[in-house]
Amino acid sequence: MLTSLQNILDLAKQRPNKRLAVAFANDLNVLEALKIAFEQRLVIPILIGDKEQIIHISKQIGFNLSGFEVINTPNTEEASKIAVSYIKSGKADILMKGMLPTAVLLRAVVNKEHGLTDDSLLSHFAITQLPSYHKLIAMTDAAMNIKPGIEEKISIINNSVSVLNKLGYNNPKVAILSALEYVNPKIESSVHAEILTNMNINKQIGNCTIYGPLALDNAINKQAAIHKGIDNVVAGDADLLVTANIDSGNLLYKAMNFLAGGTSAAIITGAKMPIVLTSRSDSEQSKLMSIALAVAVSE
Amino acid sequence: MLTSLQNILDLAKQRPNKRLAVAFANDLNVLEALKIAFEQRLVIPILIGDKEQIIHISKQIGFNLSGFEVINTPNTEEASKIAVSYIKSGKADILMKGMLPTAVLLRAVVNKEHGLTDDSLLSHFAITQLPSYHKLIAMTDAAMNIKPGIEEKISIINNSVSVLNKLGYNNPKVAILSALEYVNPKIESSVHAEILTNMNINKQIGNCTIYGPLALDNAINKQAAIHKGIDNVVAGDADLLVTANIDSGNLLYKAMNFLAGGTSAAIITGAKMPIVLTSRSDSEQSKLMSIALAVAVSE
Repeated sequence: MLTSLQNILDLAKQRPNKRLAVAFANDLNVLEALKIAFEQRLVIPILIGDKEQIIHISKQIGFNLSGFEVINTPNTEEASKIAVSYIKSGKADILMKGMLPTAVLLRAVVNKEHGLTDDSLLSHFAITQLPSYHKLIAMTDAAMNIKPGIEEKISIINNSVSVLNKLGYNNPKVAILSALEYVNPKIESSVHAEILTNMNINKQIGNCTIYGPLALDNAINKQAAIHKGIDNVVAGDADLLVTANIDSGNLLYKAMNFLAGGTSAAIITGAKMPIVLTSRSDSEQSKLMSIALAVAVSE
Repeated sequence: MLTSLQNILDLAKQRPNKRLAVAFANDLNVLEALKIAFEQRLVIPILIGDKEQIIHISKQIGFNLSGFEVINTPNTEEASKIAVSYIKSGKADILMKGMLPTAVLLRAVVNKEHGLTDDSLLSHFAITQLPSYHKLIAMTDAAMNIKPGIEEKISIINNSVSVLNKLGYNNPKVAILSALEYVNPKIESSVHAEILTNMNINKQIGNCTIYGPLALDNAINKQAAIHKGIDNVVAGDADLLVTANIDSGNLLYKAMNFLAGGTSAAIITGAKMPIVLTSRSDSEQSKLMSIALAVAVSE
């Protein structure tokens, strides 16, 4: 059980330095995050993009690039292909999105011939430190899968559980969220929750304990669960929250970070290595922790 | 613009005492809420349910029932019908759910012959005081409509705007939430948001200013909106958040109240009068404020 993002930073620091291939690194925000991550000895960046701009911005922020590989290309698609090829050929360990549309990078990642997936589903994983919860709380999927069906949800859960296992959770408590705590056939998320819970009981989904449907309050607040008469080890003590769809996933992620005082580390999982995908509006702490998370769970 | 739930309590206190018909009032939680609301001179309760139990519980909590009408029935359906008939005949102003399933009460409310709706859509409205927002934030729909289409969303918005108008908002800022801040045809909520925004521009939805799609951060945080290049009066300063579906609505409501330190007042709107529907896990403050909200906006 981790109680602080500092725990993840500590785990990352215990690992050998990872080589981080950054697709289209020519951006102030991205280079600032890399500077901090390098100073914390987490990564050795490989910077792909507009070389002149990369050098110019790095000078502005006092980021000394000597000793780093900088690969020049003015083209976002080519930058993505090069970054992916660096992972594929073993010259880099982690992928990071720079100043380019997410879709451009992911097209290179899922490319059948040159990409980094084996028909596996990519999904978003976030782990958040909140003043109002007694430990870190992970969640999926805030950004990748729009309206996952049962099969996609199984992949999404497996992706996230695999990350949690690598972070030291042997048997994470997984809450499948819905708008209520019993099955209503009209509410698909509640039906999915029931199926996923049973598949876990039948050991078809492993390395975790799944329970649902649970409304958010019953998943993260023991008192609320008791009020509703829910007596389950996951209720009130969840490690991972699985949301119904992208609307609710994105909402929960934003509510945690913009209303509840949370700080998140987030990665894309499901490819052969974690993908760091920080956003302009993420805090510096959040960007650093996302890189730390990727380092901590990369092979 | 209201900044505190106390503002709503103050508005309610300025109104003449309202008569509150409570369907199946024989419950500790319900009677405690009524006791506080009565002491605050908000309502005169009309208690319908198991009379013996009502008297017994009231004695326990020192709630003096003298002068109140107490109508005996051991049956939840009959209690609902009586409560609704009291509203219909003008003997009560507001309806409140006691210790019975919500569906039982609402069946009586939507009954074509004896009910309290004119084919109007019922929807859930909540208004929340949050430490992390500069004013009260309203939201809809956390509990009633599972997967509203465009027409239902128009009714839901109209219901909520009508409540806000009665609370003194002449032109509330309405954010239509989605997982992103531009239209993606694969994400229905973003398409709905675009349509609703245009209908507002064309004055087909009035008494408010609508903008969407907006992700939550862009709706309630000006900095986040600026980061995304969104220059709109609603962005970062929303009065009302309209969620995509019941999964996201319920999640946002719970996140506000269980993760972000919020306190909500909530009612069901769309019938001829507000319906108070407090839940066992609501705080005392939340229950009182829900009754105050109903009093403040009842005709």
